[in-house]
This record gives sequence, C-alpha cells and structure tokens, in this order.
Amino acid sequence: MLYYEDLRVGEVRELGRHHVSKEEIVRFAKEWDPAPFHTDEVAARDSVFGGLTASSCHTYSIASLISSRSDKRVAAAAMLGLSLRFPEPVRPGDELLLRNTPLETRLSSSKPDHGVVRSETTLTNAAGLEVFVMDSTYLVRCRPI
Amino acid sequence: MLYYEDLRVGEVRELGRHHVSKEEIVRFAKEWDPAPFHTDEVAARDSVFGGLTASSCHTYSIASLISSRSDKRVAAAAMLGLSLRFPEPVRPGDELLLRNTPLETRLSSSKPDHGVVRSETTLTNAAGLEVFVMDSTYLVRCRPI
Repeated sequence: MLYYEDLRVGEVRELGRHHVSKEEIVRFAKEWDPAPFHTDEVAARDSVFGGLTASSCHTYSIASLISSRSDKRVAAAAMLGLSLRFPEPVRPGDELLLRNTPLETRLSSSKPDHGVVRSETTLTNAAGLEVFVMDSTYLVRCRPI
Repeated sequence: MLYYEDLRVGEVRELGRHHVSKEEIVRFAKEWDPAPFHTDEVAARDSVFGGLTASSCHTYSIASLISSRSDKRVAAAAMLGLSLRFPEPVRPGDELLLRNTPLETRLSSSKPDHGVVRSETTLTNAAGLEVFVMDSTYLVRCRPI
C-alpha cells in the first residue's frame, strides 16, 4: 500500500491485469446496465460496436478491482471527482492492464494527515489500445507515524 | 424509451428511485472495491466519513440501474465520456432519486440515425442533497422510421 509521501508526479505504476470474460460482462450488465448490447450476443451484433461490450460502470469497476488487488494501490480515503473517457470498447476475452500516474500532489488544507492527489489511470487491452482513461482527484492518507 | 428527437434541452426528467441497503453496499464493494470503509462497519467509523459509504463505482452503477428500469430512459448506443462528482457520500438506507437534463443535442456527423447528447444526471438523497453529479456525452439512437 502506498501513502501520500510515496507518490511521485509523473511516475507510472503498473497495478495489475484482469481478464474480462463474456460471462462477467453479461452478469454485471444484467444487474446494473441491462442494455441489449451488454447482455445479448445476438442483439449486440446490430449495435454500433458490432458485438458484446462491457458497460461503462463495469469498466470503471474493473479498474477499481485491479487496483484493490495490487500491493501498489494507494491508501485512498475518498474519491473527490473524476472524468472518464472510453476510447475503445471492452470486449469478451480482453486482458486489461491498469496503470496509474500521479499528475499533481498537495497536502490537504482541511483534512489533517491527508493529501490530495490528481492522477491519470488507464486500462489498455492486449493490442495496447486505451479502453479507459480516468483523470481523478482523491484524498490519500499520509503514512502513519 | 426516448429517442434523440424526444429530448429537449433543459427539460428535467425524473427517472426513478433506488433504496441503497447496507447489504448492497457491502456486497458490491467486496466484489469490486473492497476498501474497509465500504465493507466493514466498524473500520468505517474511523474513515473520513465516519461510517459505511457506497463506493464510487457502485454509486455510478446505481444511476445506471435506475435509468435502465425507467420507461423514460434514453435509447443510448454508446457512452462517449463523462465527468463525475460525489458531493456527499451515499450511506446505508439512502433513498436516491435520479434526474436527467439534456444540456446539448446535435445529430452525429459520423453515425447515421444517431444523435450526440450531452446531459446532466444527478442522484439526490431524501434530504435533497446531491450525492452524484454526472456530466456525460453519449450517442443516442434516432426514432426508427
């Protein structure tokens, strides 16, 4: 686990990978985003992507999942805000790699023992294409004394 | 289901509500974002929020879920990008209301029979406080002829 003091602006960390199965895409979508192009392989052929794709909330959750499993995850205390782009779709069988790069760091003026970190987080597929780009700002704990 | 032609800039639609149980918060977080302040009621007392809160990917998924259940949902074909803010935490027992307001609409220049819609989506709790504010841009199907 990394604390505020461990983060260096511009230093890229690879946090891990996740294999996205068709079963996971369909199961997540059936519970949270049951659009036919996320849940039904046949209907998805007529969508703009021409096949099954993971929903945007599923893709965001995958980024969270990989991060949570990594020993290089950040001691985040609260998510303050974020913007997301989905340049390419996530498809069944994709192997996604999560990377994080701190962009700005400062101590919090309101929360003692916390810093505010803005960072870029990306998921890329095996072809090296970005499928998820997040610019987020979160509250991070300082290293306990 | 609403198509591109049905959307009016500035017209607020209420899409529905969802009750957020403690069980749902813990279950979602255990699978996708197992930070102690999302999964463990006792540990959460020491977090900046002083109690269990829903993870940000869960909150986004709740917005998707309410929308999917509504007959006033939009015929979205692809999410192009979004920014999210979480002004207040989502806590166990919260009853969340989803509203959507189109901000800009235009026909797509690259995808025939689709429009591009930028809209604001909010979740508010029973106290009327915003817990989720999304500014998103998505591809919307035109009404089939």
